[in-house]
Amino acid sequence: MKKHYLLTPGPTPVPEEVVKTMAQPIIHHRTPEYRDIVKTVNENLKKIFKTENNVLTFTSSGTGAMEASVVNALSKGDTAIVVRGGKFGERFAEICVSYGVNVVPLDIEWGTELKPSLIEKALKENPNTRAVFTQLCETSTATVYDVRRIASVVEKTGAILIVDAISGLGADGFNMDEWGVDIAVGGSQKALMLPPGLSFCAVSKKAWSMIKQSSLPKYYHDFNKYEQLVDKGDSPWTPAITLVIGLEKALSMIMKEGVDKFVEGHAGDAEFVRKHIKDLGLELFSKSPSDAVTAVKVPEGVDAAKLISSLKSKGVMFAGGQARLKGKIFRIAHMGGITRRDLEFALDKLKETLGEQKWQ
Amino acid sequence: MKKHYLLTPGPTPVPEEVVKTMAQPIIHHRTPEYRDIVKTVNENLKKIFKTENNVLTFTSSGTGAMEASVVNALSKGDTAIVVRGGKFGERFAEICVSYGVNVVPLDIEWGTELKPSLIEKALKENPNTRAVFTQLCETSTATVYDVRRIASVVEKTGAILIVDAISGLGADGFNMDEWGVDIAVGGSQKALMLPPGLSFCAVSKKAWSMIKQSSLPKYYHDFNKYEQLVDKGDSPWTPAITLVIGLEKALSMIMKEGVDKFVEGHAGDAEFVRKHIKDLGLELFSKSPSDAVTAVKVPEGVDAAKLISSLKSKGVMFAGGQARLKGKIFRIAHMGGITRRDLEFALDKLKETLGEQKWQ
Repeated sequence: MKKHYLLTPGPTPVPEEVVKTMAQPIIHHRTPEYRDIVKTVNENLKKIFKTENNVLTFTSSGTGAMEASVVNALSKGDTAIVVRGGKFGERFAEICVSYGVNVVPLDIEWGTELKPSLIEKALKENPNTRAVFTQLCETSTATVYDVRRIASVVEKTGAILIVDAISGLGADGFNMDEWGVDIAVGGSQKALMLPPGLSFCAVSKKAWSMIKQSSLPKYYHDFNKYEQLVDKGDSPWTPAITLVIGLEKALSMIMKEGVDKFVEGHAGDAEFVRKHIKDLGLELFSKSPSDAVTAVKVPEGVDAAKLISSLKSKGVMFAGGQARLKGKIFRIAHMGGITRRDLEFALDKLKETLGEQKWQ
Repeated sequence: MKKHYLLTPGPTPVPEEVVKTMAQPIIHHRTPEYRDIVKTVNENLKKIFKTENNVLTFTSSGTGAMEASVVNALSKGDTAIVVRGGKFGERFAEICVSYGVNVVPLDIEWGTELKPSLIEKALKENPNTRAVFTQLCETSTATVYDVRRIASVVEKTGAILIVDAISGLGADGFNMDEWGVDIAVGGSQKALMLPPGLSFCAVSKKAWSMIKQSSLPKYYHDFNKYEQLVDKGDSPWTPAITLVIGLEKALSMIMKEGVDKFVEGHAGDAEFVRKHIKDLGLELFSKSPSDAVTAVKVPEGVDAAKLISSLKSKGVMFAGGQARLKGKIFRIAHMGGITRRDLEFALDKLKETLGEQKWQ
């Protein structure tokens, strides 16, 4: 069978060992065996997020955990500064608006860095701000934000910092406790090498004190219900058992390599891809490129859809641009189970296909 | 390897063919291949729910879809009649209360049938009722409710009928359109033979007209966002791809057998279990037993936890009682991938274990 190279920023390839683990006969979730798995998963997720706080695991897409961070932390009429530098920044703003949160949008040019001074200014202008929402990696533009410096600004205020680290976690460096992030959101189908279906929220003490005051309605994603049970390896509702079992395996693979080495590997792969892209005479879209995914400008005279579908027919799957970037960029993921050899193969095919399309 | 007999009312065993399908290399969800799968899944789910309406598929536990039915249909301050005949009836009430819905509880004795006259009376006493919430099968008591007759009562009013069919769907007879159910909630890990992680809502025209007026906040589970995309095989957020692919396989197996024959098979298995339980001198807990799961009273002098754990050590997993029924009943599921041979083996082991515990 022809190998299929899935180089999209979610889903990412699932390693054979993880697939095999998930293919074992399913077990019940209210058993000591399963509870032990959940406890191990929680401990290892803490190491990935670099936090002493519990990591709550939800059966939902990343968007479900993004919503969870809003409804657990805030109340109707609260003010939140929301960075909008791409599609996922916009999503946080949409969620906040849906729940009657007063959004102070912080619009930055798509694909550019987020200057901490902008956050500082917005916080000064809106001293009643309860939360600042941003991304670690804005997947739609393949841009990493300097969350460490943003956190040091937010930390001095009464506001909490909520970071969508869904695509960045495990690929772009992240250190929740040291940096002072209050709620960090993750997803299973990125660097963690699992199919989609699980999402995560790690929650700081400062966030918990705000959660106590939150009056937005919630039930399924209610942090309190999960926090009470996680130490016992339990969850309030039937979890996506096979995915959690797969997660234990994937995390054990990361632990074996070491979290820091795992993250550094991503930096190396990202650098490799960026160099090759430049060598091909192509231009990076982002001025602050992420180590999880690279966005490439579609060169003049090339039809993005045609390029992507031609590569797909050769077994290489890249992602196109989303929203206003549709047709303008394509994105190559280099995270999780994507290997250097996969990238080499894909970049060769990219060169070949661009040649066929008589671009150069 | 010793076979493990998982006879719990969710999760249920996943057939080998479904496991194999899910173990194929993961594909991207924004592709024609995946969209075709979603379209087939939607068409086949309609046949299971027996409806012409779309069936919306969510990445969440059944509880997520229960919450979805509340937040999409209702507004704060609306009145809802909620049948509470077990743990899952109570859950619907809790969700409603969390969202500021005015709950009129309709408490019935756990394990007894739901008399349509009670619904009729409650609707007369509360003419401003917007929704009636009930179960098809109340999993905690293994009791089936006569949803057909309840629907004929609710249909005459302005209220909609919302049915948690999570454990009943595919096992207890259900006919959404013919009966006049407005929102039917399902889950993947019961008769549909899949791991947990997907949930469903089928939505009637009457429900849609109420949804248009709903002002409760929502985002992740917003019906409108899903309904707009389902015909194109798309979903608003990254779905649990492997589970959806497994679902296509499981549904194709059901279609091959025929939905009616599949459901009838459950009635036969349920009757088989009930007869054996009585032959063992044991007593059924429910006065209106479901064809998805059977609840058995723990006989005098037998320790329920000991019985269940002893059976588990022999490879047979039954479920205990939940909430106020803990220690008083045990439950044997006979749905989905659970075969007659599995049941025969389990009932033999039950007899053996009761003998060891010197009960008779």
